[in-house]
Amino acid sequence: MSAADTRQQIVDAADRLFYEQGFEVTSFADIASAVNLSRGNFYYHFKTKDEILGAVIALRLANTRQMLDAWEAEGREPADRIRSFIHILIMNRVKIMAYGCPVGTLCSELAKLDHIAKEEAAKLFILFRDWLARQFAAFGREKDAEALAMHILMRSQGVASLATAFHDASFIRREVDGMCDWLEALRPDETVQS
Amino acid sequence: MSAADTRQQIVDAADRLFYEQGFEVTSFADIASAVNLSRGNFYYHFKTKDEILGAVIALRLANTRQMLDAWEAEGREPADRIRSFIHILIMNRVKIMAYGCPVGTLCSELAKLDHIAKEEAAKLFILFRDWLARQFAAFGREKDAEALAMHILMRSQGVASLATAFHDASFIRREVDGMCDWLEALRPDETVQS
Repeated sequence: MSAADTRQQIVDAADRLFYEQGFEVTSFADIASAVNLSRGNFYYHFKTKDEILGAVIALRLANTRQMLDAWEAEGREPADRIRSFIHILIMNRVKIMAYGCPVGTLCSELAKLDHIAKEEAAKLFILFRDWLARQFAAFGREKDAEALAMHILMRSQGVASLATAFHDASFIRREVDGMCDWLEALRPDETVQS
Repeated sequence: MSAADTRQQIVDAADRLFYEQGFEVTSFADIASAVNLSRGNFYYHFKTKDEILGAVIALRLANTRQMLDAWEAEGREPADRIRSFIHILIMNRVKIMAYGCPVGTLCSELAKLDHIAKEEAAKLFILFRDWLARQFAAFGREKDAEALAMHILMRSQGVASLATAFHDASFIRREVDGMCDWLEALRPDETVQS
């Protein structure tokens, strides 16, 4: 296996472990054993856990960009694209009920750790917010596009948080329907609806 | 200082540290040094961090019950009481922007750790949900009281999560206004509004 492949394997394993267990609790040894690497080979790629975190955030940013670009390419109307975002909650419900939202829980953990990478992790939210705002603007809501983007992002975070605590898939479905109804009721150039 | 006072001091310090730093990252030594206790004196009260966690959850449940009872006693109308809940976001905005919601972030961390106390911590959410559902029922929405309770709890979680990542007090205020408008627009015996 090439050095680049090994590095990618490490980052993929760290991505999964940081999400499923948390960043702080995941040790170098956990990651090394997940990819079956010796300490020496591991250290050749990464010297510190913070370096791995940086690579994990970069990976998530790249994957998110790719996903949003794909939705932009395939979604006929801006509302379809926003619905693609809303439906992440259904698509990923099993993982969300077990581990929460990967973005929200990482940002929250890094905030508590007052970790140097916390602003970098928040760029994941900014990526979603800016993409959503672009869709709301294309929908004819230029004036309050960013507020609407933050509102729907807020609802997806809230659903993920309670889904983890209550393990209730029917709650997720009900709230996803509510988000779609809210979107449906939005009309160009009205004020923000609650 | 009496043994009971010392115990209370330990639990108060752990409560604060678990909230501000996270549960996993907080060590016995952190808590002992926060209350200026020797290891020996500390171990007299608590043998494991899980025991302290149990005491912290019990403390939070008791404090939450007391707060909800006080709102119930002073709030004239059910809608006033629900507004008291919504306004936690404003009242605690500085801490929320720094550390998130104490309930949501603890439940999320314990879920990732697959910690034995995760169901116990979820009782904090259940306490809020049941209290809110009681207010919505008193408001004349018996049929969907629990769904409405989950909806407003979801929104408060979503606001807390994004407030931590974006440090934007004006976003909190806007969403709190939106929650109050949503409540205002609710009428007895209508279906759940999105």
